Amino acid sequence: MVDIDVAEKDVPGSRRGAGRRTAICQATCELLAKVGYDRMTMDAIATQAKASKATIYRMWPDKPQLVAEALKCQFSENSDVPNTGSLRGDLMALMTLACEAATSEIGEIIVGVMTAAAHDPRLAETLSQTVFADKAKMHVDLVRRAAERGEVHPDTDPALIHEVIHSLISGRMTWMLGPLDDAYIRHVVDDILIPVMTYRKP
Amino acid sequence: MVDIDVAEKDVPGSRRGAGRRTAICQATCELLAKVGYDRMTMDAIATQAKASKATIYRMWPDKPQLVAEALKCQFSENSDVPNTGSLRGDLMALMTLACEAATSEIGEIIVGVMTAAAHDPRLAETLSQTVFADKAKMHVDLVRRAAERGEVHPDTDPALIHEVIHSLISGRMTWMLGPLDDAYIRHVVDDILIPVMTYRKP
Repeated sequence: MVDIDVAEKDVPGSRRGAGRRTAICQATCELLAKVGYDRMTMDAIATQAKASKATIYRMWPDKPQLVAEALKCQFSENSDVPNTGSLRGDLMALMTLACEAATSEIGEIIVGVMTAAAHDPRLAETLSQTVFADKAKMHVDLVRRAAERGEVHPDTDPALIHEVIHSLISGRMTWMLGPLDDAYIRHVVDDILIPVMTYRKP
Repeated sequence: MVDIDVAEKDVPGSRRGAGRRTAICQATCELLAKVGYDRMTMDAIATQAKASKATIYRMWPDKPQLVAEALKCQFSENSDVPNTGSLRGDLMALMTLACEAATSEIGEIIVGVMTAAAHDPRLAETLSQTVFADKAKMHVDLVRRAAERGEVHPDTDPALIHEVIHSLISGRMTWMLGPLDDAYIRHVVDDILIPVMTYRKP
């Protein structure tokens, strides 16, 4: 176990606790944008964040876990979906947030990390668990509210929301099929999400 | 314009016409599997296919177009969907073929080319146009038959089939979310495709 004070004492301008955690995540995102996942080293992150490598490894045992948390920090600002009072309103809000996140300045980072994940099972698994697990509660709440209003069957699987939104947006980005604009958001909500969520098995 | 006989005369064992075209596509797929899209050169393809580079460039102006046709050759063996007599039967057959193609020995090649396409708009566009344009007719026929049986509205957009199947399968592969097995095929058909195709707008 590396003693934190020993690990930090030679690093000028190092920050402590939550502030340091944020600084390391921020440095990771900056480097992901600059050099991409594969070429980003823990040394470079340490230098950029003015932290010691020992501290970083104490907080995150490997690069996938650090990257997953760094992306999560960026995502989490937009993680609350407003309760709009209707299924369509909630799904429109959710798709809008998802498209905003994907087209934000970290959109390119996300595409880069996804690309790396295709060859790195550990990264793919960590990303799924860390970045997307948080969304599960949001989707459960959305379905519960819609069921209370009688808009969906109470047994509707909330995981369908993530499966559909995530696959469609990342497919459209990867294949450059078109912009993630208002027309696209309406298309996904009206032509795919609402049919899927409101379907009653014969 | 390069004269074909001049271009070929120094290449021992070169093949002519359709046979040569097939040989070049085959060589391209072998190299894609071996070294990936980015590291594959036109020189290496020429050597592998026993063809001159001039001949290859005469047939395909650039690497994206050659790769798109090479993948199309591999796909086209499975491009007919049986007419099963029901919407669900047709969609099950279609999803089964799509999952078989994705998990075949060229599945890895496809993932590799998709990864390259994320950074190469020309490749992404050529792949969309060449590899997937062929499927459009198949989807139009499927919807026409289902509309004739009264299972879907005649205005149902056949493009929804490709949008949903392609995004979901490639998302599941990229993120390593699970196998493309029978349970997954039934899930996509029953929980997503049938709801999307049979939805009647209020």
